[in-house]
Amino acid sequence: MGSPYHKRSSGFGGFSRLRLLLLVFAILFLFHIIYSTLWQSSNTVQRSSLVKNNPVETIRPTFVSPTDETPEEDVRSSHTAAPGNNTITKVKGVFVVLVRNRELHDLRWSLRQLEDRFNHKHNYPYVFLNDKPFSEEFKRTISWITKAPVSFGLVPREHWSLPDWVDRYHMLEGMNDMVKNQVIYGASLSYRHMCRFNSGFFFQHPLLDGYEYYWRVEPDVQFTCDIDYDPFVYMKERDLKYGFTISLKEIPETVPTLWDTTRKFMSKYPEYVEQQNTLDWVTNDGGKTYNMCHFWSNFEIGKLDFFRSERYLKYFDFLDQEGGFFYERWGDAPVHSLAVAMFLRKEEVHWFRDIGYVHTVSQNCPSDPEMQKKCHCDPKKSVERTRHSCTLQWTQLPDNV
Amino acid sequence: MGSPYHKRSSGFGGFSRLRLLLLVFAILFLFHIIYSTLWQSSNTVQRSSLVKNNPVETIRPTFVSPTDETPEEDVRSSHTAAPGNNTITKVKGVFVVLVRNRELHDLRWSLRQLEDRFNHKHNYPYVFLNDKPFSEEFKRTISWITKAPVSFGLVPREHWSLPDWVDRYHMLEGMNDMVKNQVIYGASLSYRHMCRFNSGFFFQHPLLDGYEYYWRVEPDVQFTCDIDYDPFVYMKERDLKYGFTISLKEIPETVPTLWDTTRKFMSKYPEYVEQQNTLDWVTNDGGKTYNMCHFWSNFEIGKLDFFRSERYLKYFDFLDQEGGFFYERWGDAPVHSLAVAMFLRKEEVHWFRDIGYVHTVSQNCPSDPEMQKKCHCDPKKSVERTRHSCTLQWTQLPDNV
Repeated sequence: MGSPYHKRSSGFGGFSRLRLLLLVFAILFLFHIIYSTLWQSSNTVQRSSLVKNNPVETIRPTFVSPTDETPEEDVRSSHTAAPGNNTITKVKGVFVVLVRNRELHDLRWSLRQLEDRFNHKHNYPYVFLNDKPFSEEFKRTISWITKAPVSFGLVPREHWSLPDWVDRYHMLEGMNDMVKNQVIYGASLSYRHMCRFNSGFFFQHPLLDGYEYYWRVEPDVQFTCDIDYDPFVYMKERDLKYGFTISLKEIPETVPTLWDTTRKFMSKYPEYVEQQNTLDWVTNDGGKTYNMCHFWSNFEIGKLDFFRSERYLKYFDFLDQEGGFFYERWGDAPVHSLAVAMFLRKEEVHWFRDIGYVHTVSQNCPSDPEMQKKCHCDPKKSVERTRHSCTLQWTQLPDNV
Repeated sequence: MGSPYHKRSSGFGGFSRLRLLLLVFAILFLFHIIYSTLWQSSNTVQRSSLVKNNPVETIRPTFVSPTDETPEEDVRSSHTAAPGNNTITKVKGVFVVLVRNRELHDLRWSLRQLEDRFNHKHNYPYVFLNDKPFSEEFKRTISWITKAPVSFGLVPREHWSLPDWVDRYHMLEGMNDMVKNQVIYGASLSYRHMCRFNSGFFFQHPLLDGYEYYWRVEPDVQFTCDIDYDPFVYMKERDLKYGFTISLKEIPETVPTLWDTTRKFMSKYPEYVEQQNTLDWVTNDGGKTYNMCHFWSNFEIGKLDFFRSERYLKYFDFLDQEGGFFYERWGDAPVHSLAVAMFLRKEEVHWFRDIGYVHTVSQNCPSDPEMQKKCHCDPKKSVERTRHSCTLQWTQLPDNV
């Protein structure tokens, strides 16, 4: 009773305890209303920024006119992913798809799976390239399959035509021989343009300017495992230059002189050849002949700088001057693979054994039980178990210390 | 100044305005802490109940022993979906899959797509049936593909064996003729057991007890459009009995006497035949001959009561006594279809034209532009555009008024 607080508390009684209580509750209620409104709106912002973790999503679909080959700055974007060893979270990654209008539905099939298994969580942009202008139907229909930015570009004529120095008659003779030998695409000129474009030009397309890593996708391929990490980030964290799923042996008739031409290149430019190269993977006789091993390039995740490097550009140019893309039928797969073997160390190349992938009759399917939980493929059918593959030979190359 | 409130407010001054303010804020802060804690925990409950909208999810995977054919009560469940016309939100629906152990990976492929396009949002349970016990590998691997409850059952021997009344010699003669005529599965006994099981027994399996609607799924089929409504609810709301995607014409050599047997059945039991039947769909000559039109039963969404009805059971039994499942090679597709034609009105049957579906060489792919936005199939390849299909004839049947 002697406490002054007691006295003063009785002063509340003078104001009427009930009224004071009402006042306090009124304030509380008002505060609650204001607070919860603020909280909800901040929450909404958080949620929508989560959905739109890609800042360029708002501008999609980005229809770059096929004749306008300058990529829009907005299309390029950085992406976030779960941090790895070196906690890299941003990679300028892009899907690159060389495709014809008539392959629309086969491509939808590939992209549906790529989106379901991986990209719906990342929204990496797509660049579609074609030697003919894309139809409006193609552009409209493809845009339905993804929330990611999409751009459509035309392959420049000089990247899809016969160079001056190629002898037409010599080329037709070569085609004729291949038809006799029943070599697949033996007489196809457009297939040869495609191989040359993928060997030496795709990474120079303006729509790929500013990107660090590309992931090549083709129509009618399948992705058969959930990819619950970011392969672009995985590559960058480890400073990887080239990633593959399948390796095979090339049809010898398509590359009779590719190896000798490559040897000539190495003799002329020994300074370009990596000391700790992986040439042992492409030859079984100390370099005398090519064993036809190559990474199947319809799936590739690669660092664009590798292909844009002086050594690679010199190599492509050396090959191109020989005319073997036309006289023979050099594929971009053996060309990329021989470049990898000359220029890269084993630890710069990665077998994505956990990415289930099917193209025509060959597939990569992980047998590891933990990986299998995310898949719908039969590991017994994985190509590295067969004699057609060179993947186990790759893994058996000595590691550099 | 004359207001008593002013006077009393000066009483606050006696308590010290600052202290009162501090007290009010302390109360507000306390209230905020308590409130936000409560709000967060109630929110967590809401979110997790959203994820687990299927109450039986907690008990999955449900491995019902293949020898134990009594379904667990828990496996049956009701499902919620967006309300439709009659605002039915709960349907006891189930996927039924007759499959062999060796078809594991082809089935994973089907289920991956069914889950991606539809069931990941609904978690309708699966019942897998087999004439041999399922392997542990099969059960383990299938359970990885879905969060829905799964049960594995054995087909009873009496539903997968030659009945006493079937003449073995007569059957072998029939098989021999089919081999000569190169009829697919012409010499296969297991194919005949399968057709007979799907014609007369699947809906009697104890694992299907308590379910109202089934959706039949097979290995190696594709679902090519997002299904963003609930077909089970759609069926129930409209009191539909049978849903299909593809109709085709049967191979005549497999059903030489099926129509005459069906006509005999109708003569004997005219009371079972629906007044407003759809028999005009299966005959072009007023009932003289069967035009081979049938719903392709590898995809079916059906009401189990229809097959469990007296009229259907009598019809199946009538057919079965004739032995045509073995002497000829009566398929469950024409058997189901003739039953639909006899017993159902047009408005009880639904063409799910919006469900993109592929099985071997035939597919259903919607051409409607709005539907196409959810698909990755080529509408030009949809089978109803070909002479092999009977779907347009179905749609042209007169509507009942």
